[in-house]
Amino acid sequence: MQALPDSANRLIDEFSRLPGIGKKTAQRLAFHLLKTEKETAYRLSDALKDIKVKVRSCSLCGGITECDPCMICSDPKRDESVLCIVEDAPDIYAFEKTNSFKGKYHVLGGTLSPLDGVGPDELNLGNLMDRIQPEMEIVIATNPSVEGETTALYLAKILAEKDVKVTKLARGLPVGGDLEYTDEATLIRAMEGRTSI
Amino acid sequence: MQALPDSANRLIDEFSRLPGIGKKTAQRLAFHLLKTEKETAYRLSDALKDIKVKVRSCSLCGGITECDPCMICSDPKRDESVLCIVEDAPDIYAFEKTNSFKGKYHVLGGTLSPLDGVGPDELNLGNLMDRIQPEMEIVIATNPSVEGETTALYLAKILAEKDVKVTKLARGLPVGGDLEYTDEATLIRAMEGRTSI
Repeated sequence: MQALPDSANRLIDEFSRLPGIGKKTAQRLAFHLLKTEKETAYRLSDALKDIKVKVRSCSLCGGITECDPCMICSDPKRDESVLCIVEDAPDIYAFEKTNSFKGKYHVLGGTLSPLDGVGPDELNLGNLMDRIQPEMEIVIATNPSVEGETTALYLAKILAEKDVKVTKLARGLPVGGDLEYTDEATLIRAMEGRTSI
Repeated sequence: MQALPDSANRLIDEFSRLPGIGKKTAQRLAFHLLKTEKETAYRLSDALKDIKVKVRSCSLCGGITECDPCMICSDPKRDESVLCIVEDAPDIYAFEKTNSFKGKYHVLGGTLSPLDGVGPDELNLGNLMDRIQPEMEIVIATNPSVEGETTALYLAKILAEKDVKVTKLARGLPVGGDLEYTDEATLIRAMEGRTSI
């Protein structure tokens, strides 16, 4: 908008580059920050710089951390015999929120996607092989998408040579879901994977 | 989340303080910024500081600006004889986008709201009286809410003593609306304010 100050327009532009933030939301955020006291905008501004200065990848698991190795990799209470392989660092925190997994993690940093030029060399695999110990359990926790499943198959293949137990997350009905609205692929998996009560 | 680096948690906190941004969206934004290159986060960080350093209120209209008086107040092509009174600075840009109003603006900086302790003294009124010239048209463009209408009535009363024409925005059906779903208050106003074709 021409009549808006340049710096306000620039902030709107920068906000609307973020995922899920359109032009209208960006404007609303900018106008909100124009009205609030200086400190609110400064705190957000500093927090943005901080993550880029302080946060890096854990040299063991590939997760995000401020100290290397990360808190999970360096925690002696974690079960060394179970390793959960995830696509991206945020997936770790999805599991951590459940407070139910006590093993360690390994971040692939993506999925195999030949169309996008992502092959095995682009994934964090070399490090993974170094972390594998005999008789470990490897839980492949890629997303239940085409790329995720392809990556899981590839991992299962290269892990078959090792002396490890390879598992993957159960597929089935999501808790709180409704049979009537569940897609066919999920229903087929739920039926195939039925368990005794 | 405990396992997340402190700086990432702080960024999530700061994002979720913004209007319309919940915890999940804040996480998504933070993880996006963790993944993107440094410059994206830095540009947003700098833009946030910039608006607080550079943007101030126009001493004439109360709108937001980098130069004082603002671009609209100092534009000689603007019609000096029409003054549009709005509640907040963003309202100016709602009109400016339409490219149809060629007068000047005056920002009240709020509405009368006795319950919130906002009386006439809290509004940008002193300056308004100085800007009024004989035979001017004053368009009261407060929001069609209870507070907005109350403020409009109050303004009309104090402006009645001056030699000015006071108008307010038309109330009626919004363009693209549907009679069936229009609320009763709007329908009554639309009927009362019917115009000849």
